[in-house]
Amino acid sequence: MTGSPATPYLAVDGARLDANVRRVQAAADRAGVRLRPHVKTHKVPAIAQRQLDAGAVGVTVATVGEAEVFVEHGCTDVLVAYPVFLDEARVRRVLDLAERARVVIGVDSVDGARRAAPLAGAVGVAVEVDSGHRRSGVDPEGAGAVALAAADLGVAVEGVFTFPGHGYAPGVAAEVAAQEAAALAEAAAVVVAAGIPCPVRSGGSTPTLEATLVRSEAPPVVDELRPGVYVFGDAQQWELGHHAPEDIALVAVATVVSHAGGRAVLDAGSKTLGADRAAYASGFGRLLDHPGARIVQLSEHHAVVDLAGAALPAVGERVRVVPNHVCAAVNLADTLVVDGEQVAVAARGRNS
Amino acid sequence: MTGSPATPYLAVDGARLDANVRRVQAAADRAGVRLRPHVKTHKVPAIAQRQLDAGAVGVTVATVGEAEVFVEHGCTDVLVAYPVFLDEARVRRVLDLAERARVVIGVDSVDGARRAAPLAGAVGVAVEVDSGHRRSGVDPEGAGAVALAAADLGVAVEGVFTFPGHGYAPGVAAEVAAQEAAALAEAAAVVVAAGIPCPVRSGGSTPTLEATLVRSEAPPVVDELRPGVYVFGDAQQWELGHHAPEDIALVAVATVVSHAGGRAVLDAGSKTLGADRAAYASGFGRLLDHPGARIVQLSEHHAVVDLAGAALPAVGERVRVVPNHVCAAVNLADTLVVDGEQVAVAARGRNS
Repeated sequence: MTGSPATPYLAVDGARLDANVRRVQAAADRAGVRLRPHVKTHKVPAIAQRQLDAGAVGVTVATVGEAEVFVEHGCTDVLVAYPVFLDEARVRRVLDLAERARVVIGVDSVDGARRAAPLAGAVGVAVEVDSGHRRSGVDPEGAGAVALAAADLGVAVEGVFTFPGHGYAPGVAAEVAAQEAAALAEAAAVVVAAGIPCPVRSGGSTPTLEATLVRSEAPPVVDELRPGVYVFGDAQQWELGHHAPEDIALVAVATVVSHAGGRAVLDAGSKTLGADRAAYASGFGRLLDHPGARIVQLSEHHAVVDLAGAALPAVGERVRVVPNHVCAAVNLADTLVVDGEQVAVAARGRNS
Repeated sequence: MTGSPATPYLAVDGARLDANVRRVQAAADRAGVRLRPHVKTHKVPAIAQRQLDAGAVGVTVATVGEAEVFVEHGCTDVLVAYPVFLDEARVRRVLDLAERARVVIGVDSVDGARRAAPLAGAVGVAVEVDSGHRRSGVDPEGAGAVALAAADLGVAVEGVFTFPGHGYAPGVAAEVAAQEAAALAEAAAVVVAAGIPCPVRSGGSTPTLEATLVRSEAPPVVDELRPGVYVFGDAQQWELGHHAPEDIALVAVATVVSHAGGRAVLDAGSKTLGADRAAYASGFGRLLDHPGARIVQLSEHHAVVDLAGAALPAVGERVRVVPNHVCAAVNLADTLVVDGEQVAVAARGRNS
């Protein structure tokens, strides 16, 4: 690569990335909790490898398409943490994957468990439990029936999992971590009561990570964690106090293109940053080098910045923008520039 | 292609698309207004060709990268409706384009016009004017100085343009169209007063389109329009009353994956639909076949639907989702399925 890429582009600081990976892995190790990072955040096999090298037991993905990319690049242990609808085509794809990797698929209903029958002997299932986020997942007391439906058909049950997504709110991490532990404990108990071993109780998200580890007993109730965002951090985690700005490892490099109306207008809009007006962020993105500044207006190729009184950067100057939700930003980019090298976002757009 | 693609995917109804293209072209023709559609909405050269075949005078893009894709596929008349920062690399790219197409670049300041000096004789500029959206663009009375700065350096001035983006609100289209016309008239007058011809007064957006055409005088003040969304329509335009549901030409085909909590959960999340919580939409997306339904919760791979009392579609059933903002949805997809055929979204992600 000669010179800098044209803006806007996403730049990753590899040293910060590695420090984030090591810090969270060490915390999980201290608590005796396995880490299975959600790689939908970065979608890059080489970054997954850094997480595995640091001690992760495998990866988490959201779709069979993402699983295919990571297995193709050498990942050998994959949880699809999603109630995948197993039509004939997806059954074939999942069985193909199972020839090269240990694969576990989420289910969140008795019917879903029955549809997993063709996977028997090749692919396991994990029962998704709702711990209060109210999205997908069976109520904890229903986990036993789901597990039994799978086991009766010869499908291995790997355990239970939940996504405590309602932990994305200020000040609720401890409370949500308690709900996560309670839901997983109850679900595991009813699975065991149904006569099925339940070795995995998987939870976790970046904002609740610390709270979950802090409450870890020996042996821990939540024995596996699946955070994603922690590798990079983003403006939402910064504002929630879960990621320090000096540890943010991914920024959008943008150019000031206009001073219209006396404000700085950047060329990184929603098609670069994502449009998440994250509920707990105070704007559409922040500037890493101007902590008081906020993106106050965002369209597809424009970000209008309120610099909170600081001097306007000159037209043509490049600035580092922290996206509100890093997973959304990465999913818009064909490449990340990691320490100056272009790296393909191999699983970008693999939504199916 | 054998069988249906795996969900979620974006499907385009070609007959509806063509009807939208013809309807708006006919309305522009009746008013004596040129149409230069914004192709950032679809990012597909073959769809641009349908617009050109119907009578469009050229295309509008937001970035030099988009211009490169459309020129490579045969477009010969391109406006980059953006105050592109012309560093050395971009000057080279724009001059390359000018060998194959008529290219005009936006400028919104005297300094910006001066930076266009290397384009003299090859590429024209158009002066971006703010008509009330307060994003980029010079105030109308400042357009003369910008045009003069370009002309003094030998750079052809093609005219003035504005984006009436504040017309994305209920009930304001007529008022915003009046502001658009007033701003373009004033800007053109000061350019002409500076001794520079101003043949193009370009405006337009999908929600203000009709209001602009209705007020067209002979000769029209606004003599060129650059709508984008009208080719497909989306939930926002549907709710604003600017696009009838029976004319919506693009949907995300999604599968019901869960009935958790007694609601339908779909596999089309923000990574398929985009996360635009469009200010004037009453949810995160709508179902084409259930007008009362709303997506009430959206995450990366889940959309939770409130069916407003209608029966839950079965798990495994496919439904047609209308994204809030179709430009954002298209920019997430590598392909569109147009009448059953996979078509590459060739300019996807070309943000620079």
